[in-house]
Amino acid sequence: MAFTSVQKIRFDDVDGAGIVYYPQFFHLCHAAFEDFFDTAAPISYPELIRDRRLGFPTVAIESTFTAPLEYGDIAVVELTVEEVGRSSAGFRYTIRRKRDGARSFRARITNVLMNLDTRRPVPLPPELRSILEQSLSAADSED
Amino acid sequence: MAFTSVQKIRFDDVDGAGIVYYPQFFHLCHAAFEDFFDTAAPISYPELIRDRRLGFPTVAIESTFTAPLEYGDIAVVELTVEEVGRSSAGFRYTIRRKRDGARSFRARITNVLMNLDTRRPVPLPPELRSILEQSLSAADSED
Amino acid sequence: MAFTSVQKIRFDDVDGAGIVYYPQFFHLCHAAFEDFFDTAAPISYPELIRDRRLGFPTVAIESTFTAPLEYGDIAVVELTVEEVGRSSAGFRYTIRRKRDGARSFRARITNVLMNLDTRRPVPLPPELRSILEQSLSAADSED
Amino acid sequence: MAFTSVQKIRFDDVDGAGIVYYPQFFHLCHAAFEDFFDTAAPISYPELIRDRRLGFPTVAIESTFTAPLEYGDIAVVELTVEEVGRSSAGFRYTIRRKRDGARSFRARITNVLMNLDTRRPVPLPPELRSILEQSLSAADSED
Repeated sequence: MAFTSVQKIRFDDVDGAGIVYYPQFFHLCHAAFEDFFDTAAPISYPELIRDRRLGFPTVAIESTFTAPLEYGDIAVVELTVEEVGRSSAGFRYTIRRKRDGARSFRARITNVLMNLDTRRPVPLPPELRSILEQSLSAADSED
Repeated sequence: MAFTSVQKIRFDDVDGAGIVYYPQFFHLCHAAFEDFFDTAAPISYPELIRDRRLGFPTVAIESTFTAPLEYGDIAVVELTVEEVGRSSAGFRYTIRRKRDGARSFRARITNVLMNLDTRRPVPLPPELRSILEQSLSAADSED
Repeated sequence: MAFTSVQKIRFDDVDGAGIVYYPQFFHLCHAAFEDFFDTAAPISYPELIRDRRLGFPTVAIESTFTAPLEYGDIAVVELTVEEVGRSSAGFRYTIRRKRDGARSFRARITNVLMNLDTRRPVPLPPELRSILEQSLSAADSED
Repeated sequence: MAFTSVQKIRFDDVDGAGIVYYPQFFHLCHAAFEDFFDTAAPISYPELIRDRRLGFPTVAIESTFTAPLEYGDIAVVELTVEEVGRSSAGFRYTIRRKRDGARSFRARITNVLMNLDTRRPVPLPPELRSILEQSLSAADSED
């Protein structure tokens, strides 16, 4: 049920301490979110924004960082849907290092569907709700 | 007691929906964290890393996003210290839009002092502990 | 005649080799370009884009990199206008390290004023031409 | 003879004018450069840096921008080697939009092999020279 996006850590992803800059973990999550739309949804995220003027901004995050990523690492980003509301959805992201399988990062991110012109929340359209519900995790698998 | 860092939203800070990309809020927090060291501490953050081989990586985040930032906005980032542990500290960040004072973002970020060579936590040295304790907020001011 | 913008090298500006990632030098130039508008022009760059739907995209670059910037450095970015055309302008950027004055970078960047809706070049409006002409360097000062 | 790296334009790659931020084109080139090493070379770029303390910093750029990239675009980045010197190499990059084949960007970028500890140029080791020479373009194909 999880969607997986595999991403190379790039030359500019590291910080002055030589490990991946922590805000960059959220960028890895957003890239997986976009890849999820490209793969699972009837419409890509760029089309959702351009053609329907809908966006899915982040409203809340809880996350923990457990092992650093380094330049040369491959990040395996796993996305599951944990909750589908009227206008919102809760996503779970887990990032692992490919080289040893160690879990680097875990986050629960809540997004709200928004009309980009009015900047008001809007109910999830049926086809988007359906895609999200198909990706609902049966349970929050801890490991 | 709060430390404030004022930062221009730059041309590249926005995303495909025309508002500041959410991982960039954590970059604003990190810039404020660096400015706090430059202003309040006996040693800058680059010196801490280069000369003492100590870093202060992020281990946990809780955050909420309440109002978008746009290109042309000035972000007012407020940092307070909420907790000082043996090897760790808890920081509170609040980001406001200068144009209307609206609160855009709030986060509680926990950092652990780490030896960058051994990658093990180390106790806060007295002078760093002292600086952090001076910035402890009397209470978590909600608004 | 030169406009100067002073910018801190931030924790995320470095690359996997521990020096500032080279595309980031162009980001320093763009920040100076925005600061130039904020300081010298009757209209800020965000307003130019939002209110007049005009942008000033880059069409050509020639640049050389002569000394690396590191985390903890302060970049002194100098901007001069070298040429003002009907729809275009040529800017010269020089970036020095504050710590020793060494020249890190030099670029000649050409921008064309563009209507963002039609994506066609448009003539420089008189007030913008006037600002640019006031910043024309008398000569290309080599050093 | 050209090496091609295909890259998605991501949500954060755009600027306040709604098109890809121009420094980001150089990031696309660097990603292609890393992919070239991963694909063609006996050693990856992260390994070259970590294990041999060699880097290949950029010393000169000439580039032109001819058509914007947008969010949702796929960038097709073509890399050819144009010149191999004692310690340096000249690379040609061409970026096209996948949707219409339009050429967005062209650059000639010169890199010098450097010992990261001494920061002095070093001669290309034979196996790296050999890889680069195999990728030498027969001629500079204009189009």
